Amino acid sequence: MAKPNLQVALDNNTLESALGDIRAVGNIVDIVEAGTILILQEGTIAVRALRALFPDKVVIADTKCADAGSTVAKNMADAGADWMTCICSATIPTIQAAQKQVKEIQIELYGNWTKEDAQSWLDIGVTQAIYHQSRDALLSGGSWGEKDLAKVKMLVDMGFRVSVTGGLSVDTLKLFAGVDVYTFIAGRAITQAPDPAKAATDFQNEIIRIWGK
Amino acid sequence: MAKPNLQVALDNNTLESALGDIRAVGNIVDIVEAGTILILQEGTIAVRALRALFPDKVVIADTKCADAGSTVAKNMADAGADWMTCICSATIPTIQAAQKQVKEIQIELYGNWTKEDAQSWLDIGVTQAIYHQSRDALLSGGSWGEKDLAKVKMLVDMGFRVSVTGGLSVDTLKLFAGVDVYTFIAGRAITQAPDPAKAATDFQNEIIRIWGK
Repeated sequence: MAKPNLQVALDNNTLESALGDIRAVGNIVDIVEAGTILILQEGTIAVRALRALFPDKVVIADTKCADAGSTVAKNMADAGADWMTCICSATIPTIQAAQKQVKEIQIELYGNWTKEDAQSWLDIGVTQAIYHQSRDALLSGGSWGEKDLAKVKMLVDMGFRVSVTGGLSVDTLKLFAGVDVYTFIAGRAITQAPDPAKAATDFQNEIIRIWGK
Repeated sequence: MAKPNLQVALDNNTLESALGDIRAVGNIVDIVEAGTILILQEGTIAVRALRALFPDKVVIADTKCADAGSTVAKNMADAGADWMTCICSATIPTIQAAQKQVKEIQIELYGNWTKEDAQSWLDIGVTQAIYHQSRDALLSGGSWGEKDLAKVKMLVDMGFRVSVTGGLSVDTLKLFAGVDVYTFIAGRAITQAPDPAKAATDFQNEIIRIWGK
């Protein structure tokens, strides 16, 4: 198995807060993400700033696009995003329209998606999916369990590169041992740590310990 | 039946373009919406500008929120939004978290939602839903049909106030005659008309002709 990527999600309320957070960890992680909260607050300047600061990293615009795929994706690509997210309930034409504008689309899995939905994304050439523990579900007491791992494995077996996110910590990475995870996405577990650079390094070291370099 | 509202959606790529569009029609329509495209481009300044310009209108932030409901909704309420949209694939905890921060949540219906989903929204006190023809589906040749009207009627019968949107024109309003539509949402059919003020007035007059004052 390839070493899973480490992605940091910036879900700050202001650009300056996001820049303060990414400063210490941007060069340690593999992928930087302008989170939905941040983009809704600040607009595409969030993406443009990450592109400018990290010209050699993958930059993701987490728009969770549900409609107007062409316009949203063109705008994010123009701002410098490599990849963009679409919500799983977006129609296939929306996803296809978005695909034409950015390098890759990632499908954000929330709510009641089916294996048939997943196959329909593969059929149009989308090969990345993001499996969530919803932040609000986590706040309500949910956590990672066998049901989640089974869904992640199913997606991997279907041919997706799967990112996982939601309440991850260095200690929870081992739950995924043996699963060919493409990317671990962490937010506050890194940015709000007492020493964010150490937290990001700890994540990378634990990933290497489990999956190898 | 009450007269359906007329809502203008601003899906511009820049704040200045949105302001130029709303200038002529803001006082004719009932509800003004900061569209998803606009918010993703410019951030909450789009909502703050509409709040400042139209202190007595309902202002909607069309975030299509899928997660982090509390933070997104608080940010939009702080910016002046009365109502905010959540995507239908958001989890119930996300929608509930958002509900606590803004006056009303509207559920945006895309993809495979079920009647059971709809009942679960009613059960938590969400009574507004937005039925779409996806912009990209329309671009692929879709249109309003009996299947759509049946779903709108089902939602109305369940107790929702239902907004409809997607490819609406003055000529298509009559398709909804006899249906207790809460709000018609139009974007470019108004803002890109040769005379936007006339277009908005034509929409209102046709609504009154069909549904009464």
